[in-house]
Amino acid sequence: MPNIAHRAATMPASPIRKLVPYAEEAKRKGRKVYHLNIGQPDIKTPKVMMDAFRNHEIDVLAYGHSAGLWEYREGLARYYGQHNINVDKEEILVTTAGSEAIIFALMATMDPGDEILIPEPFYTNYNGFAVEASVNIVPITCSADTGFALPDDDAIRARITDRTKAIMLCNPNNPTGYVYTAEEMERIKHLAIEFDLFFLSDEVYREFVYDGKKHTSVLHLEGIDDRAILLDSVSKRYSACGARVGCLVTHNKDILDSALKFGQARLCPPTMEQLAALAAIDTPPDYFEEVHGKYYRRREAVFEGLAKIPGVVGQRPPGAFYAIVKLPVDNADKFCTWLLKDFHDNNETIMMAPAAGFYATEGLGEDEVRIAFVLNVESMTRSMEILGNALEQYPGKKH
Amino acid sequence: MPNIAHRAATMPASPIRKLVPYAEEAKRKGRKVYHLNIGQPDIKTPKVMMDAFRNHEIDVLAYGHSAGLWEYREGLARYYGQHNINVDKEEILVTTAGSEAIIFALMATMDPGDEILIPEPFYTNYNGFAVEASVNIVPITCSADTGFALPDDDAIRARITDRTKAIMLCNPNNPTGYVYTAEEMERIKHLAIEFDLFFLSDEVYREFVYDGKKHTSVLHLEGIDDRAILLDSVSKRYSACGARVGCLVTHNKDILDSALKFGQARLCPPTMEQLAALAAIDTPPDYFEEVHGKYYRRREAVFEGLAKIPGVVGQRPPGAFYAIVKLPVDNADKFCTWLLKDFHDNNETIMMAPAAGFYATEGLGEDEVRIAFVLNVESMTRSMEILGNALEQYPGKKH
Repeated sequence: MPNIAHRAATMPASPIRKLVPYAEEAKRKGRKVYHLNIGQPDIKTPKVMMDAFRNHEIDVLAYGHSAGLWEYREGLARYYGQHNINVDKEEILVTTAGSEAIIFALMATMDPGDEILIPEPFYTNYNGFAVEASVNIVPITCSADTGFALPDDDAIRARITDRTKAIMLCNPNNPTGYVYTAEEMERIKHLAIEFDLFFLSDEVYREFVYDGKKHTSVLHLEGIDDRAILLDSVSKRYSACGARVGCLVTHNKDILDSALKFGQARLCPPTMEQLAALAAIDTPPDYFEEVHGKYYRRREAVFEGLAKIPGVVGQRPPGAFYAIVKLPVDNADKFCTWLLKDFHDNNETIMMAPAAGFYATEGLGEDEVRIAFVLNVESMTRSMEILGNALEQYPGKKH
Repeated sequence: MPNIAHRAATMPASPIRKLVPYAEEAKRKGRKVYHLNIGQPDIKTPKVMMDAFRNHEIDVLAYGHSAGLWEYREGLARYYGQHNINVDKEEILVTTAGSEAIIFALMATMDPGDEILIPEPFYTNYNGFAVEASVNIVPITCSADTGFALPDDDAIRARITDRTKAIMLCNPNNPTGYVYTAEEMERIKHLAIEFDLFFLSDEVYREFVYDGKKHTSVLHLEGIDDRAILLDSVSKRYSACGARVGCLVTHNKDILDSALKFGQARLCPPTMEQLAALAAIDTPPDYFEEVHGKYYRRREAVFEGLAKIPGVVGQRPPGAFYAIVKLPVDNADKFCTWLLKDFHDNNETIMMAPAAGFYATEGLGEDEVRIAFVLNVESMTRSMEILGNALEQYPGKKH
């Protein structure tokens, strides 16, 4: 039997999904599993979006333009304008979800063996995309102690080599919920100019910022039109994760042309989903107000619950719908597996994502988990109660 | 301004799509363009598939399983059973179109710098996927003189090196329309065993075989369960190119596990399209009979038209809906551009794909084009008439 590729063998399994078989097993035993492991909200997709599928008049489900449907690109330009991001429709390349936008950006800016700086903990699938693109992620370590703010410039400079081609932020951040300040964004901009780097910004949680904080887009920054690449998706904005529609936005024409060539190879993003995403641009504002309130209350429910559990360390994140929290356990990976395999509380349990997979530095995050606030207040409250009860019984508990 | 990646700069533009701006310009001038350049059929998508979008009852358009929806994988196993391909649903990984199935197969079987044998001319986007995967395509040259049959074993052996990891066929073939015989498939099987290679087979045109010929799947072959990887898509089968649903099928568990890790990184294929593709499995048989008859008649219309044009060389292909034909021109790329920019016949023109982009060997195919029989008989007949008139006026005509 021929050997599989080395890169396939070394490709990390997703820490968000690798426990899925245990969850399925638990469900087969009749247990209810609260999914706090994945950013799959229970929020309804806007009716206007789901109605677009119902009301189509398409006879031939044809290929679209490789850069996305024109009318959708126009719609996106309008959407960005509402967020003070001024881009032309030609500067937007529609992708098959944010995932593809990230892969195209990596492949357009970096060659095999090149390096990209990313604050850790980071969205774990960046590892997978880096393996696929044969590039190396160099982590900038951030800490729970500062709520995962960026370290100072010197700490970042220390990680730059002659192979460094880009720096990427996820803002608001998955998995920490941190929202980078305008001042931090300016600092990264100046480093990008100083070291001639591209500045990639994954902003799929733009709509989810709390406590009066303000979101700064990479395309709000002045003087780096040739370096700034915005990566986006409709998955979270409209609770439409199954739609697989994202985009790459930049003023740099060379990057657009390159990304389009990768886009031409795969022909086009899904057509029906783009039409639905176009319809979603007209989602009424009260939808977002309602969703925003829901996430706020869920976050409160989680942190009120966590406050009652001894030994848990973490703080309310200002954005997205995730928090990284430190648990009093020997190993979060073991604990999360145990929760699914060996534990239940009144026939219910919870699934969380072990945080080590979000760090590139060996040994970090081993007693941390990522909790996604994607279920209703009652479920989040109950989940934290289950977490508390589980910690009391877990054999690997630290005291 | 930072430089874009070398691989992005060297990534080939799709010869199928690179003339799109000229076509758009021609349309802006009010000209009708017959699209023979792209495999976009005008055939209606089965009603049962399009109705699945209309009749959904989904409130939250959620992520699906990374390997595809279970019910769809079951449906696919049933579909393959009808084609004497016996696979379990667990041996099927649903992908975002055939494109992704190919990328996952390349990344799972090959490392950067490894080589894959592919008969040329080949589906041009394989070049793009090879660049993305940092692997090298080594062509096995086939010729119009034999209708693009495989050369003998020694010609294939001569291209194998210690970096060769796989061989890939597209069967029925895009762009030649050739259908590999059972004997040719057996020959490739024995070479794969002899040189310890994976055998990848892109079979998206399975349903399109004419003249009583028979299609042999890589999964019909015995004794290579660990080497055989079937790559597939619903795009052509149901005239649903915009759906972006494909799959990778293999009995090799290591390959499935690897492909799933790449699949987890991008989370999941589009949900609504999978539900529609599931519904499409129950497309009534008379749909395929009707479609088959249409393509047959279109092929006849094309070759009846070509027979009237002096200096054209080509033969009726037994499969798919493409033909590579040789034209009496200095350069097919120039000719195809001229057709869009500088020519019209009664305000109509045609768009074809220059064939050089389908060859890896420099200098081959420069006077050939790929014609897709994707329009109705009247349009195909009219297109060949336009081609004949154009050749009479083209300044670079060869005599």
